[in-house]
Amino acid sequence: MSHPLGHFIEDRQTLVNDAIDGLLLGSSGRLARLDGDPDIRVVLRAERDPGRVAVVSGGGSGHEPAHAGFVGEGLLDAAVCGDVFASPSVDAVLAGILAVAGPAGCLLVVKNYAGDRLNFGLAAEKARSLGLAVETVTVADDIALPGAAQPRGVAGTLFVHKVAGHAAASGLPLAEVAARARRAADAAKSLGIAVSTATIPGSRRSERMAEGQAELGLGIHGEPGAERLALPPVAELAAIMAERLSGSLAGAGRLALLVNNLGATTALEMQVLTRAVLATELGRRVEVLIGPAPAMTALDMHGASLSLLPLDDEREEALLAPVESPAWPQAVRLAPPVLRPVPEGLRGEAFTPSRDAAVAARIATVARGLIDAEGELNALDAKVGDGDCGTTFAGAARSVLADLDRLPQADPPALARALAERIGRAAGGSSGVLGSIFFAAAGAALAAGRDWPGALAEGVARVRRYGGAGPGDRTLLDALIPAVEALAGGGFAQAAEAARQGAAATAGMQRAATGRSSYLAASDLDGVEDPGARAVALAFTALAKASA
Amino acid sequence: MSHPLGHFIEDRQTLVNDAIDGLLLGSSGRLARLDGDPDIRVVLRAERDPGRVAVVSGGGSGHEPAHAGFVGEGLLDAAVCGDVFASPSVDAVLAGILAVAGPAGCLLVVKNYAGDRLNFGLAAEKARSLGLAVETVTVADDIALPGAAQPRGVAGTLFVHKVAGHAAASGLPLAEVAARARRAADAAKSLGIAVSTATIPGSRRSERMAEGQAELGLGIHGEPGAERLALPPVAELAAIMAERLSGSLAGAGRLALLVNNLGATTALEMQVLTRAVLATELGRRVEVLIGPAPAMTALDMHGASLSLLPLDDEREEALLAPVESPAWPQAVRLAPPVLRPVPEGLRGEAFTPSRDAAVAARIATVARGLIDAEGELNALDAKVGDGDCGTTFAGAARSVLADLDRLPQADPPALARALAERIGRAAGGSSGVLGSIFFAAAGAALAAGRDWPGALAEGVARVRRYGGAGPGDRTLLDALIPAVEALAGGGFAQAAEAARQGAAATAGMQRAATGRSSYLAASDLDGVEDPGARAVALAFTALAKASA
Repeated sequence: MSHPLGHFIEDRQTLVNDAIDGLLLGSSGRLARLDGDPDIRVVLRAERDPGRVAVVSGGGSGHEPAHAGFVGEGLLDAAVCGDVFASPSVDAVLAGILAVAGPAGCLLVVKNYAGDRLNFGLAAEKARSLGLAVETVTVADDIALPGAAQPRGVAGTLFVHKVAGHAAASGLPLAEVAARARRAADAAKSLGIAVSTATIPGSRRSERMAEGQAELGLGIHGEPGAERLALPPVAELAAIMAERLSGSLAGAGRLALLVNNLGATTALEMQVLTRAVLATELGRRVEVLIGPAPAMTALDMHGASLSLLPLDDEREEALLAPVESPAWPQAVRLAPPVLRPVPEGLRGEAFTPSRDAAVAARIATVARGLIDAEGELNALDAKVGDGDCGTTFAGAARSVLADLDRLPQADPPALARALAERIGRAAGGSSGVLGSIFFAAAGAALAAGRDWPGALAEGVARVRRYGGAGPGDRTLLDALIPAVEALAGGGFAQAAEAARQGAAATAGMQRAATGRSSYLAASDLDGVEDPGARAVALAFTALAKASA
Repeated sequence: MSHPLGHFIEDRQTLVNDAIDGLLLGSSGRLARLDGDPDIRVVLRAERDPGRVAVVSGGGSGHEPAHAGFVGEGLLDAAVCGDVFASPSVDAVLAGILAVAGPAGCLLVVKNYAGDRLNFGLAAEKARSLGLAVETVTVADDIALPGAAQPRGVAGTLFVHKVAGHAAASGLPLAEVAARARRAADAAKSLGIAVSTATIPGSRRSERMAEGQAELGLGIHGEPGAERLALPPVAELAAIMAERLSGSLAGAGRLALLVNNLGATTALEMQVLTRAVLATELGRRVEVLIGPAPAMTALDMHGASLSLLPLDDEREEALLAPVESPAWPQAVRLAPPVLRPVPEGLRGEAFTPSRDAAVAARIATVARGLIDAEGELNALDAKVGDGDCGTTFAGAARSVLADLDRLPQADPPALARALAERIGRAAGGSSGVLGSIFFAAAGAALAAGRDWPGALAEGVARVRRYGGAGPGDRTLLDALIPAVEALAGGGFAQAAEAARQGAAATAGMQRAATGRSSYLAASDLDGVEDPGARAVALAFTALAKASA
């Protein structure tokens, strides 16, 4: 059976129930749920102090981690989950209240939507009629629609959750918990921006906005934004949003800022947006930062919202208090960025030139041999690669040759390191890095007391590890490995012979494990020597000649 | 200036640098970055114990929170950030090593991509040639391509980060830190699934997959998946993925599972997927769960990956150890879900019927009045609403009338609560909830000792609060508010007169604040009484008649 739409779900009808079960599994017994009626979806703390005021919130699902992800000590005692973007029923809310409210009473934190107001409201009335002390606070923080009779409750609700949760955890009585929550709800202001709308799991993807178009002041259920605009660069966007928010804030004091990912915005964008907002005039008043993080999302909406709360010492303490719910974006006190200078030692080693005639002759011979072979190697590479193998090797050789008198010829470890640096700079790309690794590893081995054959073997080992190729993979290693092995037992002539045999053998290898040749068919490779292996054979042949 | 593409960024060129600055701002001084060369993007701990082995990782950006989000005690000492989906340079990696590595040495955790292997590899060689002890571990956990010579490094890298970070924080020497990391890297296995590819910020949205189509075994850079399939329901998908992973795992012991959000998958889906995976045969071996969470993302890819690591006591301790990096998905030990029964008390109060002839007469008269007015109210509502106002009120009235003998007529608080319950059940929707709120609040006030006028006033107050409408908003409150006020000062006749006047006044109100009428033009409303207000007036008129 195939699923007709593109979401990871089992059944649209049980989506929220299934998701709650998944949440519980990840809580290691910290969270519980009510069991017995699939229409009553309440997540609650497995253990709580019954003497404290219970804080209950909830609403439609699709805003995860809100609200179930915020159940925990110092936050919510229970979250009542409706279907996606739909208020939970009166019975579900009442069940949530009854499950957690004790003699200290219960505060309901409700987002300002008609359905939530009514269902939470009636549940509150019913709970009161059962003798429970219940207060409600309605959050209406959205400033998108100026003069709206009923502003929506959006991400600023988190401030209310935290202020209320902290007050309740501190053992304050219901009246005080409710008063603090209401003052926070009155003071919180939010504004959203998005470049895509939300897609409900199990439904078709919806596309309302054209690419590059954005909606400012949109809700968290895919409601259209208050205005459309071409998305400006983020500094300009931050300035626009900050100006709107400034106009809605009472006073000019210090602020807490919540930067909320509405769902599918990349972390890179969220971090860039955060930086931009903090750089505005309004942003400079921010002393406590929450996020950037997904907090009150709208499913997979590509968008973000900014929420602000004027701070006093009491609120600051409440916001900064740590909580155990992993999905809660922990507030931090803003601090200047810590910068450290880029370390010394990157600029490359300063080598002391020294003279060794035999060494200089070998280097020069090998380099000239590779320069002479440029055309031949390029022609070979044109058949099985991108035709630049000769130019790469010759370029590195020219660079070394031009620098020959400045090399520490008489200091083998330093010479190997100097070659590593020059080859890395001249050759570029993977070849340059691999050549550099070969000589750098050899240099370290020489410094540790190994002889040249042993040092080159160490270089081979590193090239194999970092490059990921081995014998028979149709690379220069098929010449280099036997050459270096022969060098240890014999001399340059034996090494050159081994390299030539190894290079010749690559013509029969019909599979390349890496590089461009790996994309070719076996028939294209058949009979053609690997140009890198040929280059190594030529180098060892030149070396043997210079050492004869 | 408008931005041509749909992302919250300032400049594609400085995207990663800007994002790192945003990350630092949210770290409250816990994180630092190297400063001085914009091509060297290294995030490091502001403070660390120089006597411990340094753990350094990194790679292309676009995988956030990996890797910079994982810098912190017990995890990474530094993260080296390349451009989006591109390896950082040798110099950048070397700068990262030099910035944090002390005498205890440094472990590089590298994902198995050619660019990362080479750049991290050469940086390691250079650091060694500068006298530092450096070890590398390459992670190649992806099982998507069976028999691949170079499996990719994907989300299983997190296991290696955690094992290495914990070992280093425990003060173990480099050789032991590296050995544990390598064993974890060898044992970790991962597999990904996605229904969309990734979009690079600043680039056009890319759509490779048709709706309902999925790719199994895809990489974290938008590489095509190993196979395409029609996305099955999540239980079937989990079974397919679990079977592939089972085949790649050595042994049959207990496991750690990381459920990784590749970017834009909703939390609901991730929780549903987690539940489904844990329900498979393989899932029943899982004892430690990490996530679901975005860990090693691919920008905004709608997809997920599963990573498994065979557990022993040492690894279990390492994975479960808490860390300070907020983006790190904290591992938990799996525990059975905690279920609590739905509380008693939801089934409704069992009312004891009682008899009061005067009360019964009043209820019956009001109910019959509303039933008689059904057609009239519907006709009025057809002009300004959806034409069912009369049916709604008549339906509730019929339900109450049918139940008249079972009502607690002689117990005012119970009577009000009983009416609240019957109206809520019979009327449905917002009207039912509002009627229920009105009588429930009145019942609670009566129980608290208020008289009927005071109790009804309390009901009005609650309807105003939860319904969100007030006087002049062209709702039934325009009749109810003056009626209840008149009741307090006078009697039923005065209340009925006030209700009729209030209802008549709604005909002149050219703006409805709530409900369907709020979508109509002023001219459509002009001269038409609000049907809800008329219903209230009719009810009070009937009440006055019954009480005369």
